[in-house]
Amino acid sequence: MSLQGQMSPPHRDNDAIMLVLEALANRFGDRFSANRTVREQHANITSWHPVKIPDGVVYPESTAEVSEIVSICAKHRVPIIPFGTGTSLEAGVNAPFGGVSIDMGRMSRVIAVNEDDMDCVVEAGVTRKQLNAHLRSQGLFFPIDPGADASVGGMASTRASGTNAVRYGTMKDNVLALTVVMPDGSIRKTGTRARKSAAGYDITRLFVGAEGTLGIITELTLKLHGIPQTIASAVCSFPDLESACNAVITTIRYGIPIARIELLDEVQVHACNVHSKLTLPELPTLFLEFHGTEAGVQEQSGTVAEIAKDFGGGSFDWALQAEDRTRLWEARHNVYWACLELRPGSKFIATDVCVPISRLAECMVQTKADIGKTGLVAPIVGHVGDGNFHVSVMAMTDDPEEMARVKAFIDRLNLRAIEMNGTCTGEHGIGEGKQEFLVREHGANVDTMRAIKAALDPHNIMNPGKIFRSG
Amino acid sequence: MSLQGQMSPPHRDNDAIMLVLEALANRFGDRFSANRTVREQHANITSWHPVKIPDGVVYPESTAEVSEIVSICAKHRVPIIPFGTGTSLEAGVNAPFGGVSIDMGRMSRVIAVNEDDMDCVVEAGVTRKQLNAHLRSQGLFFPIDPGADASVGGMASTRASGTNAVRYGTMKDNVLALTVVMPDGSIRKTGTRARKSAAGYDITRLFVGAEGTLGIITELTLKLHGIPQTIASAVCSFPDLESACNAVITTIRYGIPIARIELLDEVQVHACNVHSKLTLPELPTLFLEFHGTEAGVQEQSGTVAEIAKDFGGGSFDWALQAEDRTRLWEARHNVYWACLELRPGSKFIATDVCVPISRLAECMVQTKADIGKTGLVAPIVGHVGDGNFHVSVMAMTDDPEEMARVKAFIDRLNLRAIEMNGTCTGEHGIGEGKQEFLVREHGANVDTMRAIKAALDPHNIMNPGKIFRSG
Repeated sequence: MSLQGQMSPPHRDNDAIMLVLEALANRFGDRFSANRTVREQHANITSWHPVKIPDGVVYPESTAEVSEIVSICAKHRVPIIPFGTGTSLEAGVNAPFGGVSIDMGRMSRVIAVNEDDMDCVVEAGVTRKQLNAHLRSQGLFFPIDPGADASVGGMASTRASGTNAVRYGTMKDNVLALTVVMPDGSIRKTGTRARKSAAGYDITRLFVGAEGTLGIITELTLKLHGIPQTIASAVCSFPDLESACNAVITTIRYGIPIARIELLDEVQVHACNVHSKLTLPELPTLFLEFHGTEAGVQEQSGTVAEIAKDFGGGSFDWALQAEDRTRLWEARHNVYWACLELRPGSKFIATDVCVPISRLAECMVQTKADIGKTGLVAPIVGHVGDGNFHVSVMAMTDDPEEMARVKAFIDRLNLRAIEMNGTCTGEHGIGEGKQEFLVREHGANVDTMRAIKAALDPHNIMNPGKIFRSG
Repeated sequence: MSLQGQMSPPHRDNDAIMLVLEALANRFGDRFSANRTVREQHANITSWHPVKIPDGVVYPESTAEVSEIVSICAKHRVPIIPFGTGTSLEAGVNAPFGGVSIDMGRMSRVIAVNEDDMDCVVEAGVTRKQLNAHLRSQGLFFPIDPGADASVGGMASTRASGTNAVRYGTMKDNVLALTVVMPDGSIRKTGTRARKSAAGYDITRLFVGAEGTLGIITELTLKLHGIPQTIASAVCSFPDLESACNAVITTIRYGIPIARIELLDEVQVHACNVHSKLTLPELPTLFLEFHGTEAGVQEQSGTVAEIAKDFGGGSFDWALQAEDRTRLWEARHNVYWACLELRPGSKFIATDVCVPISRLAECMVQTKADIGKTGLVAPIVGHVGDGNFHVSVMAMTDDPEEMARVKAFIDRLNLRAIEMNGTCTGEHGIGEGKQEFLVREHGANVDTMRAIKAALDPHNIMNPGKIFRSG
């Protein structure tokens, strides 16, 4: 079986596309658009990758409608690109072979919240902030927080995580079941509301992180957590990256159930000071958050403060009030905007390596030296409790010489992480940007992935050109 | 594509089997056996399912040797049955179409323990007790505890969990990466040592729970946890099942990170009293365990004691010393033997439903009434924090009338759980015993599973006759 053959790019058949657009326009009326501006809004807009727009955009309101759309596209072998909020950092919503963008924004109903079971059933277009606003009065929350107010369908598709993952896990750990529309339009449910199951293959986990290449997620059953009795945040600066990393390793090794432990290098702290009007010392800094009972939080934070001191950290600067905490974490979430101000006219190029935590200091220090040698403006921020960090390269993307240097730097960074037994992407996904490194990282295991893709989507109509190299 | 066709049973070709046995005997010498006693030891011996023995047993000592064995079998399309310690409760090691049992017992090396990263790399034949003995001096432990001293390869293949899962998760949550030998003999690595990754399909999670039907796991990278500073165990009895269940729901809802919360009904408590010489009140009883700092354990247990009281529970009977705790949990783990004593001459038939915790009381009470009406000796024990419970039906398996009643009871139990949005198996797997209920539970999602099976193992040589109905 020639898998490579089965992964070849879909042949662009303009007649087929016209037939599909006409059928969708007839069926969905003003919930379909072929307007250029609308189509441009449904291509990659949040990353530096070249924009590749779809031929049309459709707005379903139910799983049954998604099934109809997919059936129409499947009949004519026209590509389908699932669209959540468009915040992919690896151009996951681009349409390199054209086709139909399915905008899930109208599927934003919270179908059920089961308080006793601490789970909920939601449509894929629900965003994490919308969900948490809905849950607040029940004392529950959904912890996955990738920064952007992404849709839960998109978050599942990219196996998102973010700042709370060190304690609450990633999307992989917080999805109980999915409703998916398969590449032939059939509707399938991948699990139940049981907390665990040993019944057959874990199709739920196969769809989490598949980036829409195996089907479209239309509904999710998600695990929820109780809002902690006490939440306390703090910042603590360190003389150098290595000391900060070692404090993190020790904290994790002690088994302290810390909720967030984020590292910003001095360049990033400077950018946040400017953008968010903070006055933090411009040194490598940990942003910390503790969740628990009052006594539990006190005990945890006391232990971490001791650990920090042992590694030369300064005293904890506490944000105990809700508004101070919000200000702190907003500053953390706004690094994207802070970075853009750092070098006016530049574009933000995200990287996303994740290494075993024992290699974190070494990986960051080598990367920092590489940034200096390469002459880049590139702050670092990391979900260091998981060994995951992002270098935000602020680049003039229309300068080919600079882009060549940037590309070479990112290649070295990805290979460095892979050589340290880590991954080229902790949470952003492969999309269009990291296909070469997927192969470097996984080797022959990519053949297993390709075989599954070919078996479930033999005509390669589901988000073609993502994860796997085409052609 | 006729998936059903691709899942048809392997044609038993006696000439091919003779060729394979000869090749293995030549290559592996006394690490191969076609002796009948040895072969009988490598079929189902721990459950009531009929025994189906393999044609030969081989004992590899490395991944490369497993690859050789699989290549030989693949060439002649002879079935392969991976064998860990043979403790499957659903006949996962049976050989319904004959073939070669690969006994992983000699692949029992702990390859690396990475203290700072809290992970380890081990061969698949390592057992959980062996691993924990190895780890103790480093202050680390591997939490998954299905009762039996199973091999970690077998535990991964059945997505095992057990008493600690409510806090530490199941095998799904504690495997970082696998080395697998695919059905064509090729060796693949499914992940890295990074704590999280968004690089491509989650092939690790696909192999966890695949029951050896997609390939053989030969090495595992496992997450480890720090041995808690303080461990405290207690028992608490309740007037009825419902009160005990409600105490559990409230405990989970409060977010208390309880390490173990096990429910035994009064029949099971009686059996344990007799077998393990305990003097517990013969009432529905919770076995509890708390892990944490001294203050944390005190706080947790204080809160749970209050909750128990609110639901009519008695006072906590504490087992604070290590030997008392061991005695208590040994009694819990020995329910298999305790049950056998309950009805001399009977065999132990395990069930394994798991429901959303809000339905647990209802499901248990209905099941209890059904046991009474059906006239069975059938104690109940449950990992109730996850909504998972086992009815141990003690049956005279050579009495067809009784077995018909037992079978009808188990069918009703599985359907009851599925109707409550639960699963027919929380942790034992499908094996030979639950194939009908996999279809009831998953519907068309089984087609997705079959398509993957057909893509990765087109000749159905990997543990044929398990998970999917053949023929």
